[in-house]
Amino acid sequence: MPAKTYDTIAGLRGALYARRAAGAGLSVGFVPTMGALHEGHVSLVRRAVSENDITVVSIFLNPLQFDESADLDSYPKTLDADVRLCGEAGADLIFCPSVREVYPDGASTRVEMDGPTDVLCGKSRPRHFSGVLTVVSKLFHIVEPDAAYFGEKDAQQLAVIRKLVRDLNMPVTIVGCPTVREADGLAMSSRNTHLNADERKAATCLFRALAAAREKLGDAAARSGAPRGEGEWASLAAKVADAARAVLDAEPLARTEYVELLDAETLAPLNDSSKAALCAIAVQIGQTRLIDNMRFSLDG
Amino acid sequence: MPAKTYDTIAGLRGALYARRAAGAGLSVGFVPTMGALHEGHVSLVRRAVSENDITVVSIFLNPLQFDESADLDSYPKTLDADVRLCGEAGADLIFCPSVREVYPDGASTRVEMDGPTDVLCGKSRPRHFSGVLTVVSKLFHIVEPDAAYFGEKDAQQLAVIRKLVRDLNMPVTIVGCPTVREADGLAMSSRNTHLNADERKAATCLFRALAAAREKLGDAAARSGAPRGEGEWASLAAKVADAARAVLDAEPLARTEYVELLDAETLAPLNDSSKAALCAIAVQIGQTRLIDNMRFSLDG
Repeated sequence: MPAKTYDTIAGLRGALYARRAAGAGLSVGFVPTMGALHEGHVSLVRRAVSENDITVVSIFLNPLQFDESADLDSYPKTLDADVRLCGEAGADLIFCPSVREVYPDGASTRVEMDGPTDVLCGKSRPRHFSGVLTVVSKLFHIVEPDAAYFGEKDAQQLAVIRKLVRDLNMPVTIVGCPTVREADGLAMSSRNTHLNADERKAATCLFRALAAAREKLGDAAARSGAPRGEGEWASLAAKVADAARAVLDAEPLARTEYVELLDAETLAPLNDSSKAALCAIAVQIGQTRLIDNMRFSLDG
Repeated sequence: MPAKTYDTIAGLRGALYARRAAGAGLSVGFVPTMGALHEGHVSLVRRAVSENDITVVSIFLNPLQFDESADLDSYPKTLDADVRLCGEAGADLIFCPSVREVYPDGASTRVEMDGPTDVLCGKSRPRHFSGVLTVVSKLFHIVEPDAAYFGEKDAQQLAVIRKLVRDLNMPVTIVGCPTVREADGLAMSSRNTHLNADERKAATCLFRALAAAREKLGDAAARSGAPRGEGEWASLAAKVADAARAVLDAEPLARTEYVELLDAETLAPLNDSSKAALCAIAVQIGQTRLIDNMRFSLDG
């Protein structure tokens, strides 16, 4: 059965109500997307389908999370192909509302967060995460899912949404799903379609930089064990980031925005080897901004 | 059956889950309070009980909505009496968590709103409504009510919460309930217990001021019909507010914070006689801050 599409909140809610009424305790899985779907999104939909009775995908290019209108304007839009991909992956309901349907009165009510929103991408895009938090809150209230699926590729987004759900006691389970990569390591991204042939080759530098970070982290652990005290932690984080940065600097088409090694959950500076570390990178390649990350265990 | 009390989120959720599982489609009514319950609160609980299968009352003195810690410290606390009153009114479940249970990691995630939060009480209490919006969002996520009941006495709070639910698409119906008054017109309030005998007498000035506002509005409508244009609307609002202010000024123990006539829904300046007007007052009587309001139809 192909997925049914709805462009109004009332339409989607009616359809969900009817499906839920078909059986007590039917679970709803939800995959929020901005469209321009690729294999990474498809893996989220498949996971939701495998774990729930009903799967909802939203396709909504949320203007509130774009700090620059040029970035919003150039974002790829491929609705027909998206709907087909969702259906093939087993989604039941697709929600593709207009901006007017989602924000009929603008966005004078917003969800804001201090802490993990202020670092990494939050530095150069100060309104981005408030836009993400606001639209995700709205979508959770509309869909009322049991579980929602997000890619680990957007590691900061995933950390921020986990904190949103915890801090506001939202009744939904957040499931993080592994980054899907091309054969040469490039993380799948809707923005990859903007890359020309030379830029596409250069874009592997993100994955190579993360591999260098992992190697440096392994060396440091083997040589000196776990850091002690703030100074040693900061020094380790700087060494690992420098190793990754050297790979990015060697790529003439890449302009590095940030390379950081942080606590994977809080995105605060590392200070505890029992917690996972996140190495996160943002790079501009030509006109295209790409991000990638890897998560490392610190206790051997 | 007396109401059962829960001081943890997990405990309340478990109890709600068990009660909901007893029958498909059981409705949940919710009355959020800060305790120090009076007849006004009891009327909300009775209304919720009459309209729902399960009624939950929360009793939580939310520090996030107090701009001044002295106001928080002096707020009356009467938990045992509150629990008894809720039970007598027919409530099923009472949620009375600690501050630590509600804000285990502080309050770094908050719901913010522009517009109706910036006027009236929002002017002197800049963080108040963000605190209200944040705790109400959390409580809605914890209780997942079908309907939530709020007093019209806190007219600005009610307008702000209606907008919260609309803007963030929360799946809950907001029910506003009439202000309950003493025989002499004083609106019931937890803060009334702070008044000494002279202040208690003086406190009737709020109701008398609202009566004067209503009279002035009736006169103006009879004399000149509906205002036309921004200037006439502003002049009408000023005349009505002045009539109320004259009553307050005549009361030596009262210090007026604001008197305003606004659009009852948006709390913006009036400009449409098809919409209801709200006359809202805040007055300091001794050390006690009191608010009151009335809603007036403008089209005869």
